[in-house]
Amino acid sequence: MRAEIISVGTELLLGQIVDTNAAYLGQQLAELGIDVFFKQTVGDNPARVRGAVRLALSRADVVLITGGLGPTEDDLTVASVAEELNLPLEPHAEIAERIRQFFEVRGRVPTETVYKQALIPTGARAIPNSRGTAPGVHIDQDGRELFIMPGVPFEMYGMMESYVIPRLRERTGGVVIRSRVLRVTGEGESTVEARIKNLIGGTSPTIAPYAKLGEVHLRVTAKGTPSDVAAQLDAGEAGLRERLGEMIYGTNEESLELVVGRLLGERAATLAVAESCTGGLVAKRLTDIPGSSAYFLEGVVAYSNEAKRDQLGVPATSIEQHGAVSAEVAEAMARGIRDRAGSTYGLSVTGVAGPTGGTTAKPVGLVFLGLATAERTEHRRVNFGTEAGRSGIRWLAAQAALNLLRLHIQRS
Amino acid sequence: MRAEIISVGTELLLGQIVDTNAAYLGQQLAELGIDVFFKQTVGDNPARVRGAVRLALSRADVVLITGGLGPTEDDLTVASVAEELNLPLEPHAEIAERIRQFFEVRGRVPTETVYKQALIPTGARAIPNSRGTAPGVHIDQDGRELFIMPGVPFEMYGMMESYVIPRLRERTGGVVIRSRVLRVTGEGESTVEARIKNLIGGTSPTIAPYAKLGEVHLRVTAKGTPSDVAAQLDAGEAGLRERLGEMIYGTNEESLELVVGRLLGERAATLAVAESCTGGLVAKRLTDIPGSSAYFLEGVVAYSNEAKRDQLGVPATSIEQHGAVSAEVAEAMARGIRDRAGSTYGLSVTGVAGPTGGTTAKPVGLVFLGLATAERTEHRRVNFGTEAGRSGIRWLAAQAALNLLRLHIQRS
Repeated sequence: MRAEIISVGTELLLGQIVDTNAAYLGQQLAELGIDVFFKQTVGDNPARVRGAVRLALSRADVVLITGGLGPTEDDLTVASVAEELNLPLEPHAEIAERIRQFFEVRGRVPTETVYKQALIPTGARAIPNSRGTAPGVHIDQDGRELFIMPGVPFEMYGMMESYVIPRLRERTGGVVIRSRVLRVTGEGESTVEARIKNLIGGTSPTIAPYAKLGEVHLRVTAKGTPSDVAAQLDAGEAGLRERLGEMIYGTNEESLELVVGRLLGERAATLAVAESCTGGLVAKRLTDIPGSSAYFLEGVVAYSNEAKRDQLGVPATSIEQHGAVSAEVAEAMARGIRDRAGSTYGLSVTGVAGPTGGTTAKPVGLVFLGLATAERTEHRRVNFGTEAGRSGIRWLAAQAALNLLRLHIQRS
Repeated sequence: MRAEIISVGTELLLGQIVDTNAAYLGQQLAELGIDVFFKQTVGDNPARVRGAVRLALSRADVVLITGGLGPTEDDLTVASVAEELNLPLEPHAEIAERIRQFFEVRGRVPTETVYKQALIPTGARAIPNSRGTAPGVHIDQDGRELFIMPGVPFEMYGMMESYVIPRLRERTGGVVIRSRVLRVTGEGESTVEARIKNLIGGTSPTIAPYAKLGEVHLRVTAKGTPSDVAAQLDAGEAGLRERLGEMIYGTNEESLELVVGRLLGERAATLAVAESCTGGLVAKRLTDIPGSSAYFLEGVVAYSNEAKRDQLGVPATSIEQHGAVSAEVAEAMARGIRDRAGSTYGLSVTGVAGPTGGTTAKPVGLVFLGLATAERTEHRRVNFGTEAGRSGIRWLAAQAALNLLRLHIQRS
């Protein structure tokens, strides 16, 4: 079985946005074991969209099309495909009703053009859109299938997961390609790679490292029957865990904040956070997790020295003697927020995120982390350098703070 | 003049890497005023590369090809193009010598296959590669030009800047295409579009709306001589500002948090933020901006009712009578954080981000915002619905809070 991807959007040709949808679709098709030989990108132009569809249908069994499904005049993908396939458009009552409700809930009045999204080619099925107003369209032409989805990634992912992937899986039967990702933090790519050197380069499973900001993802990939694949992935994971141990913090889509939250929940422990240079990022990441209110009590963003003193009880003398970016202040912040919130743990971050404000003694990228427990308060000093820039340094500091807490809980 | 882009690489089709090269090339061609109607991606396969080149030459004057120029067996782009055009490959002495030196300087011994990169189609010109070993190839076929470049972005950028762009500029003779983006928030895409309906669909400048989460971007694009283009962009912007007024918060890369920070800075005003459902996101966005310590004093993430009461002075009776998600609590939070920090403004967010915790009276997506100033405290009630999911609702709530403050400052 062969698939082809068509991305529709003049903004893609102009380079105004990068086509991450195509990469996502390529990954999903690869995991399904479906070959992709071509990908086309066309602008919002009916004749050229039609031409791209014609070409794709001449050489592929499955065509995935994204983009151009919205309510505006530019959005002409469905109409162009319908014309190419000689399928008149028909209003879809259920979709129209959903759109009406979407606006009603928000207390907004839909414009006329919005209902254009409820027009579906005759004989096609509407793919439900749980995340927006434009439905997708599924056309089966004597075994050749077209799936038309919105260009908004979040909406498209939803349709792929709930509709397109299950449908394609039915068609492929048998052999699958599956991956499992083990997520490592606290060490750089070269260190991780050196530890697992002889595991890289196998054939099934294959193991490949991918460096991300503040972490390394190790992708284990296997091909075969589902049970065979499961055994291969387990063996690959076991080999990596043997060599990397607690450096591995999670698998697949598990974020560090999710893992920290789970550890806190399992121990019925609570957390409060005091942040300076990360400016709320640690609290934001922790509260990204649904249900985090069970263990996350509160956060303080103490950006100024006054806030550190008044809100966290950091002694003015500590700030004067050691500076706001220091081990002493990091520890005082962690103790202060723990006392204030009455939480099991107090976690703090203070550092120089840049781009300015660095000195020889306290350069941009220098960060102190503090962790207070009932027994003691500790700190960690890390220098992330300047290469990652302000937002990168903030991310790395948040990552290191969460990892400090993770390792503490796991070891205790 | 029309150009077409071909990206070669099986890893692109598998989604292992995102095709940022195509976006870069699209931008460069757009700025040169050269139309791009199609982009193709093919794997490392001679027949399919030949097919893509044939198709591109049938409909474009200029073809830019990237990828598949290295020393390995996979790298067959140049040979495939040469075969398609019936141009035998010839060794290029100067390139071979450059490769020899490249390895000598690094104290490494070149493998045999490395010299494959010194084979150039007869009659073609080698494009110097100052950043690696593989040269690019420039073929002029009776006025149709092909430029073949490496897939490594850094090397490709170098060739574009030093060779391809100057060459194309000669051909176009002065015409450029430039864009300006006006950023709108507080209204949905269809409302914005209805207001500017008669401005969309012009030819120069063209105006196109793009929906983002919590905002709409209006891209004004003009083609012509540089001075002509500047005048057209100004006229396009003026037309949009006349119809949309204060709904426009910024231009080009300006984020809402940057604009809010600038407004605060201009008035020497300060801000403190109390967050419940956004969990630190508002503080995080504000402190993403370098220099935000000048106006951002502190933030409190008061996730629990206790924290709202103890840290922000929200009366326990308000929470009992109206619930934590209410106009009364939002206003009390805003007043509380303003008093505590001694800031010009106090901004607050409380709501139901979901996925659970919603009720009929307080559904998931319902958010109250509070804004306290020296004179008064106000609130705003917004229902974002459930479609955007937890992280989407949090983003929309942060966006609305920042916009509430922006509008207040701009109007006062």
